[in-house]
Amino acid sequence: MIQPPPAQIGMPLEEVETPALIIDLDAFESNLAQMAEAVAKSTAKLRPHAKTHKCPAVARRQVALGAVGVCCQKVSEAEAMVAGGIRDVLVSNQIVGRRKLARLLALAREARVAVCVDDAENVRQLAEAAAAEHLRLDVLVEIDVGANRCGVQPGKEALALARTIADRPSLRFAGLQAYQGRAQHIREWDGRRQAIDGAIAKTRDTLELLRADGLDCEIVGGAGTGTFAFEAASGVYNELQAGSYVFMDADYGRNLKRDGSANDEFRQSLFVYATVMSKPVAGRAMLDAGLKAMSVDSGFPTVADLADAKVVRASDEHAVMELGPGAANLSIGTKLKLVPGHCDPTVNMYDWYVCVRGGTVEALWPITARGVGY
Amino acid sequence: MIQPPPAQIGMPLEEVETPALIIDLDAFESNLAQMAEAVAKSTAKLRPHAKTHKCPAVARRQVALGAVGVCCQKVSEAEAMVAGGIRDVLVSNQIVGRRKLARLLALAREARVAVCVDDAENVRQLAEAAAAEHLRLDVLVEIDVGANRCGVQPGKEALALARTIADRPSLRFAGLQAYQGRAQHIREWDGRRQAIDGAIAKTRDTLELLRADGLDCEIVGGAGTGTFAFEAASGVYNELQAGSYVFMDADYGRNLKRDGSANDEFRQSLFVYATVMSKPVAGRAMLDAGLKAMSVDSGFPTVADLADAKVVRASDEHAVMELGPGAANLSIGTKLKLVPGHCDPTVNMYDWYVCVRGGTVEALWPITARGVGY
Repeated sequence: MIQPPPAQIGMPLEEVETPALIIDLDAFESNLAQMAEAVAKSTAKLRPHAKTHKCPAVARRQVALGAVGVCCQKVSEAEAMVAGGIRDVLVSNQIVGRRKLARLLALAREARVAVCVDDAENVRQLAEAAAAEHLRLDVLVEIDVGANRCGVQPGKEALALARTIADRPSLRFAGLQAYQGRAQHIREWDGRRQAIDGAIAKTRDTLELLRADGLDCEIVGGAGTGTFAFEAASGVYNELQAGSYVFMDADYGRNLKRDGSANDEFRQSLFVYATVMSKPVAGRAMLDAGLKAMSVDSGFPTVADLADAKVVRASDEHAVMELGPGAANLSIGTKLKLVPGHCDPTVNMYDWYVCVRGGTVEALWPITARGVGY
Repeated sequence: MIQPPPAQIGMPLEEVETPALIIDLDAFESNLAQMAEAVAKSTAKLRPHAKTHKCPAVARRQVALGAVGVCCQKVSEAEAMVAGGIRDVLVSNQIVGRRKLARLLALAREARVAVCVDDAENVRQLAEAAAAEHLRLDVLVEIDVGANRCGVQPGKEALALARTIADRPSLRFAGLQAYQGRAQHIREWDGRRQAIDGAIAKTRDTLELLRADGLDCEIVGGAGTGTFAFEAASGVYNELQAGSYVFMDADYGRNLKRDGSANDEFRQSLFVYATVMSKPVAGRAMLDAGLKAMSVDSGFPTVADLADAKVVRASDEHAVMELGPGAANLSIGTKLKLVPGHCDPTVNMYDWYVCVRGGTVEALWPITARGVGY
């Protein structure tokens, strides 16, 4: 059973069914342009991460403004992007399992597809699967530059793994994946800068080691919305993988600029639209959007258009707001825009973006890669 | 774009694509039977909450074992249940907005539908919508028995609202909704009992006040998996709305019995199935299931079939596990069963249940009400 979209094109925002996922098109387009401009000043290219939006309609707009392609985290995301017209996809993650590899290779017949590895046995499986399909697949070595997640150690370990790729005729060594995910949400500018300085140094050392061994890196990829300016200026990274900048969220909104002020480089363009559905006592109101309409892993959403209201609790289908004096008159039926705590896993719950400009629904974009991806 | 199911019927569990949502059918059926037996000993009936499973195939099995119907939290859930053959649905929540009311009333032509209110203006809107459709809709007054969420105050406030329902020819006053959600996860038995004793007293007092005013309650509903035995024995509640008992989760697993031991009344039947996709250093491994495959609002999942592995962090598409000595030999490609922290919002992310018995996929059930419900 597929739910109909929560809106129709031409409808006023106030008539959109709730909960709905709203894109403020003016803010969204401003973010796309802002990033394109920032990247154009550097020697790097943009390969934005599609795990944020999971939507080819967004990816096509990024490519139109200069992005070389997109990153994906899952084969299913890559399938959705290629089906939606994207011609160059880097799966910035390890892909394990016979059927997933088969699907990845099928996709490599339709578009340029690259994948990351951090394990020699995985390289062997990729090589055999590609050889059986008479394909040559681009493979990057992921190195751990401080995120403590996936990735081999920079330096010799990375070189050894790169060599196993280069030795396989069905694979092509295509570069390094060096994303410092943990740096993205360090609040202070200087803390982010230090973390990325470390990542840059590790990546540079590894590149030199590889080069000395005759291995060139076509792609040196990394960076996120919190740190991309550092990687862009490094002269080491040549592809920037920021994703959240298109939408922003409450968590990224808490990052600070160099002078300690709030970051305003990108505008909040993504909102969960919700209705006040109960106000049983003074000072408390319930919204019809809870844990099944927004991820709270990075904190509760903030209320965008009502200063004196705060989400203090969430259950499956409710968010509980405390109302200060300025919100005391809030009435049942009022619809509010919330800024989700974390955009990516919130987007993942929805089937549609309701794209709004000037208070009117201008477009509906299906989130074709939403859900649990294989 | 709809993803194909992650499994085929007859497939061994080990071949199921990950992340997948697994139902252990033996444990699931044991839970259904255990609850049916417990409720049969009381004067109450079971009206399990379908917000947990969002799946008519599960609801039909509950009804076959004696449930009078189901609860839903959203009109979209109710639509999915009626479409799947359920004939009696209580929307245990407030429904606000013209189009949602229209859909609720359309549904009331196909099945017995009831809805909750906690606001006189909402009663007026329901009454006018029902009158326009020449329907008579069952309406319950929700009272706040300690959850501090929706619901009018017990006693006089409830009576006043019930009177506004009874005064409307297009509505029928059908009873009280009196769910104490906050009591469900109090760890100690005695704490749960005290909280429900309070809810029972408030509900009883309100029932007496209503009765003195000539208003009978066909339904007195409430209770969840953590407390239903108390409501069942109360002689006050006549419908029990537990939902999570069909699956259980890590959070409910932390509730204690009267003697302080771990609760073992219901078995864990729901699992997120995940693959080890990276093990870059000794003592750490990554699973391919993160924030988009399980809700972490009630804590990280536990690893079901590996004692010495612990999920310590989750990002969009990864769970990071720390491995003790007993899990040191874990290899990339191994698939593990995780117990989600909170079953309801985890289920909500998936399109399919992969139902397994004796290590083989026996059925695939579509989760037709999954996603953001309107």
